[in-house]
Amino acid sequence: MNSFGKLFRISIFGESHGESVGVVIDGSPAGIPLKHADFNTDFSRRKSGAKGTTPRREPDIPRIMSGVFNERTTGAPIMIMFENANTRSRDYTRLQDVPRPGHADFTAHRKFGGYQDYRGGGHFSGRLTLGLVAAGVIAKKIIDPVEVTGKILEVGGSTDIQASIDRAIEEQDSIGGIVECRISKVPVALGEPFFDSIEAVISHMIFSIPAIKGIEFGSGFQAARMKGSVHNDNILTMDGTTETNYAGGINGGITNGNEIIFRVAVKPTSSTHQVQRTLNIKTGNLEELSIEGRHDTCIALRVPVVVEAAAAIVMADFMLLEQQVKRIFETKRD
Amino acid sequence: MNSFGKLFRISIFGESHGESVGVVIDGSPAGIPLKHADFNTDFSRRKSGAKGTTPRREPDIPRIMSGVFNERTTGAPIMIMFENANTRSRDYTRLQDVPRPGHADFTAHRKFGGYQDYRGGGHFSGRLTLGLVAAGVIAKKIIDPVEVTGKILEVGGSTDIQASIDRAIEEQDSIGGIVECRISKVPVALGEPFFDSIEAVISHMIFSIPAIKGIEFGSGFQAARMKGSVHNDNILTMDGTTETNYAGGINGGITNGNEIIFRVAVKPTSSTHQVQRTLNIKTGNLEELSIEGRHDTCIALRVPVVVEAAAAIVMADFMLLEQQVKRIFETKRD
Amino acid sequence: MNSFGKLFRISIFGESHGESVGVVIDGSPAGIPLKHADFNTDFSRRKSGAKGTTPRREPDIPRIMSGVFNERTTGAPIMIMFENANTRSRDYTRLQDVPRPGHADFTAHRKFGGYQDYRGGGHFSGRLTLGLVAAGVIAKKIIDPVEVTGKILEVGGSTDIQASIDRAIEEQDSIGGIVECRISKVPVALGEPFFDSIEAVISHMIFSIPAIKGIEFGSGFQAARMKGSVHNDNILTMDGTTETNYAGGINGGITNGNEIIFRVAVKPTSSTHQVQRTLNIKTGNLEELSIEGRHDTCIALRVPVVVEAAAAIVMADFMLLEQQVKRIFETKRD
Amino acid sequence: MNSFGKLFRISIFGESHGESVGVVIDGSPAGIPLKHADFNTDFSRRKSGAKGTTPRREPDIPRIMSGVFNERTTGAPIMIMFENANTRSRDYTRLQDVPRPGHADFTAHRKFGGYQDYRGGGHFSGRLTLGLVAAGVIAKKIIDPVEVTGKILEVGGSTDIQASIDRAIEEQDSIGGIVECRISKVPVALGEPFFDSIEAVISHMIFSIPAIKGIEFGSGFQAARMKGSVHNDNILTMDGTTETNYAGGINGGITNGNEIIFRVAVKPTSSTHQVQRTLNIKTGNLEELSIEGRHDTCIALRVPVVVEAAAAIVMADFMLLEQQVKRIFETKRD
Repeated sequence: MNSFGKLFRISIFGESHGESVGVVIDGSPAGIPLKHADFNTDFSRRKSGAKGTTPRREPDIPRIMSGVFNERTTGAPIMIMFENANTRSRDYTRLQDVPRPGHADFTAHRKFGGYQDYRGGGHFSGRLTLGLVAAGVIAKKIIDPVEVTGKILEVGGSTDIQASIDRAIEEQDSIGGIVECRISKVPVALGEPFFDSIEAVISHMIFSIPAIKGIEFGSGFQAARMKGSVHNDNILTMDGTTETNYAGGINGGITNGNEIIFRVAVKPTSSTHQVQRTLNIKTGNLEELSIEGRHDTCIALRVPVVVEAAAAIVMADFMLLEQQVKRIFETKRD
Repeated sequence: MNSFGKLFRISIFGESHGESVGVVIDGSPAGIPLKHADFNTDFSRRKSGAKGTTPRREPDIPRIMSGVFNERTTGAPIMIMFENANTRSRDYTRLQDVPRPGHADFTAHRKFGGYQDYRGGGHFSGRLTLGLVAAGVIAKKIIDPVEVTGKILEVGGSTDIQASIDRAIEEQDSIGGIVECRISKVPVALGEPFFDSIEAVISHMIFSIPAIKGIEFGSGFQAARMKGSVHNDNILTMDGTTETNYAGGINGGITNGNEIIFRVAVKPTSSTHQVQRTLNIKTGNLEELSIEGRHDTCIALRVPVVVEAAAAIVMADFMLLEQQVKRIFETKRD
Repeated sequence: MNSFGKLFRISIFGESHGESVGVVIDGSPAGIPLKHADFNTDFSRRKSGAKGTTPRREPDIPRIMSGVFNERTTGAPIMIMFENANTRSRDYTRLQDVPRPGHADFTAHRKFGGYQDYRGGGHFSGRLTLGLVAAGVIAKKIIDPVEVTGKILEVGGSTDIQASIDRAIEEQDSIGGIVECRISKVPVALGEPFFDSIEAVISHMIFSIPAIKGIEFGSGFQAARMKGSVHNDNILTMDGTTETNYAGGINGGITNGNEIIFRVAVKPTSSTHQVQRTLNIKTGNLEELSIEGRHDTCIALRVPVVVEAAAAIVMADFMLLEQQVKRIFETKRD
Repeated sequence: MNSFGKLFRISIFGESHGESVGVVIDGSPAGIPLKHADFNTDFSRRKSGAKGTTPRREPDIPRIMSGVFNERTTGAPIMIMFENANTRSRDYTRLQDVPRPGHADFTAHRKFGGYQDYRGGGHFSGRLTLGLVAAGVIAKKIIDPVEVTGKILEVGGSTDIQASIDRAIEEQDSIGGIVECRISKVPVALGEPFFDSIEAVISHMIFSIPAIKGIEFGSGFQAARMKGSVHNDNILTMDGTTETNYAGGINGGITNGNEIIFRVAVKPTSSTHQVQRTLNIKTGNLEELSIEGRHDTCIALRVPVVVEAAAAIVMADFMLLEQQVKRIFETKRD
């Protein structure tokens, strides 16, 4: 289903080339100041246009259709909608029968019996993350002073990110990358043992973002090569500060007050100008395919703000669950 | 909360040194043959006793307290309980005030205000995975002919597993490992776009297992270093078979019919004989601590069957959702 | 929260005098034919305008913003929005401080700390049922050939409904009524023992409709005065047909194949021209209040189609759960 | 499914004549004092033995198998189990093929394909309410000082309850009754608009109790015959006290601080010594049936404490949601 969260619950909808994409945010505390301008920073970070991203430009103007009154959240569901403008569906009609390798075309066709909106990836499009980022803007207000920061660590296997992008553009191919997210000023005791552990819920949310292939917390895969005497983080203070932070801020699924750290692997954009082989599902013949439409060389570049949003949404839910946030919001002093 | 799943739903309970651990399995189809002996193989794989595992031996005798009648599931909730026998709680009393580094002692204390059962990790103990494995035995029957196979890839950074264990025992330290899981004969079109993607739900479940620090699907973190033209799996046949399987059997969150592959990183056992520093939360003084009780040198050795169970439970839920399993079970012909 | 359902899940949003009201419908099978005209009949039944209903007229034009492509559902979430047009907010400003007896003004103020949209009842308005009715239109297509029929049994304590309305208008007061709903051609074996019994889930949904004060199934409250030998419905045929239907089509929470019958009590519209006493929550003084705005004399008149929608939504969910509906819809032959 | 609740979540399991019945309670705050003796009062109110109830006597000894340590809740799931002792399964074997009118025998057979435990109603038995009552004991501690009181209003259509019982026993028939529940000292602002309204969630829970045919809040069905000017409860004080309480303490689905009042209709016990007609589902022939086993003349007599438990469970969940209860319980001073 297209919803996530227990007390702070988001539901996304829309298609890349349909009428709109958007999000319903349920469970937001009442009284949070919210203006259109509040979305600008995160939307522009998610936006395309920079080198290595698709030339498709959407205005991404949020229409707040419910849940906000006098520039404050009311406590009722907040529906934010983005009407699609810059759609060029003619690019995609051939793909109805020729599923692109690496994309969801084949699986969507089988899951929805051919009724899916196949234009531009339809409901599977990365454009749906716009709703996530919008919800993230509100989540970040809720969890304040907790801070979430996502950034690119490397693309195409290199930390020289600009060089990697240039080379990929030259080679007319796509590349992946690694994004790190840190959550700081985290209260102790968020999360549950087992099924609602912090790692479990964050990873659930993160794998909802298209193109993610892996996630690791703290020492991550490196932990498998460490000794316990090294990996264990010695506890130094009554508020839980540890000497090292191999645990990534989580013990037994529960925050220990140190920084939460996780990294995600982003695969190379599935759309590439390179020639690939696939099957025409109408004729049953193998065909060659080169994706000519507009697309990102490195989708990882646009992922950090989405990962931030995802993490902030999860934290908002956990903080509401643990009564770290009041149901009626008290604005900070100016 | 301690429940997981939509249509095939499990709830775990219990403490390491309390009366019992166990599981309630709700949503199992009616008519599945189920005998006590069916649990033997997976329980013995999870059991300790081999070199590198704890000398604590529990009989692990499942008491099926509801939901089975005439050796068939009835469709009502199945409660399976394991009464704890071999508990030596005196080992743990000191730990009430001295949280062990790497363990959940500190976070549990803060979350539950000191009321938690601190003996042997209490509700946070790996012993709780016994309920998962029990549910996994039933899940495997439900998803048949889908097959789930977990295995150790490496421990202590080496594929020579026996040597790694020997060295760790000699050094009186603990080590981690990497476990791989493959799910084969998977129907196409399981999973949902976004929040209930196959990766999202599997990772949620996997991070519920204690000691897991990372998960990756298909090419995983390596994907971040690949080019799109290489990473994309060319589609070869009408049933979705691909030339390569970097996607790990999943596109857009949905199964494509190829093998699902994922790997998980298991950290070194937190209990180690090595001296560590921690805080006495009663006195506020730093203390030195060496864990003398019974514990595993390499918990990763016991993880494969737990990962299998986790994966089977998730698959059972998705297959019920997609109506790939009937609510009333029809036994296979012999 | 503002969502309901397990596999067929609806989320409503909006305010009476805000930008919009609407609904997101998640879990609809793919392939259902859906046109704007399909909503006409049920929307006109819900509409005001008839004697005894409010003179506020809204065009109620559904904007389908996602989830439908080429006039078929795609399987992705369907967002249907209604932009509010005929709002006269000046009617309501005084009510910010003077909660109307019988309305949610006082409770909303306390729940949302004064941040709620108080205009016209805001998010508590009966106008939100428009989303329910829209979802009901789709649900009715899903459950076909199961049929749901709601009708007024009595208003103001009388079956002469027209006379009751005339008298209430003359007296400038409001009146209630009783609505009956019948669901026919129901498959046997929908529903679950205990918490997801048919009665439990239908009643949950029905009490979500504003102004409902009671519900009874089959013999209902009359059952409390009957003898078992009379009340028990003798079973006559292999398909479960019973001689009588005091059970209202449900045994042990599960459909028995006979007609599901339930009745709901609708209270008189809370808005009335009669003078009432209430408290000014700003001054703390008691005041007299007479509601001058536009309102229904008898809201019960508009309830049958809402009850139908509610029942159809519940049935759609249960039928998906019991695999009585395919996830990819096969259109009926013409 | 067999679970209920968002933050305070109960899962029931068991069969009337199987190994056990019981409940898992998840989400209880840590630190609540809990002893075996705490269950005595409510268990004895639910117990049979009085005139009009079944002669089957079960010791109903709770075994607390997890979640309690040193006579305090730990915050982990509490599993409470009751092993069945006094089972006389030979009474029921014939019923495998001859579904009793009014019982769930026919629907259970169809739902579970004949695999259900048919002995004594199996999982559909009223014996499962023992788990509800156990959870209710804990819920009552959580919601303190909120008080829940259930009582019989009438049985067999009369308030002379003893006379009604005597007559029914003489006539060898069964009778129903009406139970009222009042919840007092309720905080304002519990509940949600629409789907999680107080009425919606209470009714959902109440209809999970076997034999309930109707529920009404406040004025209930009588509201349908009242005028708005009478039905509206004038607000008198800043804490929401109203002049009358026709609303039953709820406006717009949200508590207004006045007493919550609801009544439920309990049908006559389905088991009766009177001869009824039903179908032998093996032979297809109509047969006559008279229930000879042990059963209640008037099950309504045992319902008040179950209704109380149901209401307390719902209130505990709402109070946790609204942060009216701390996650770590602070014991009241003596």
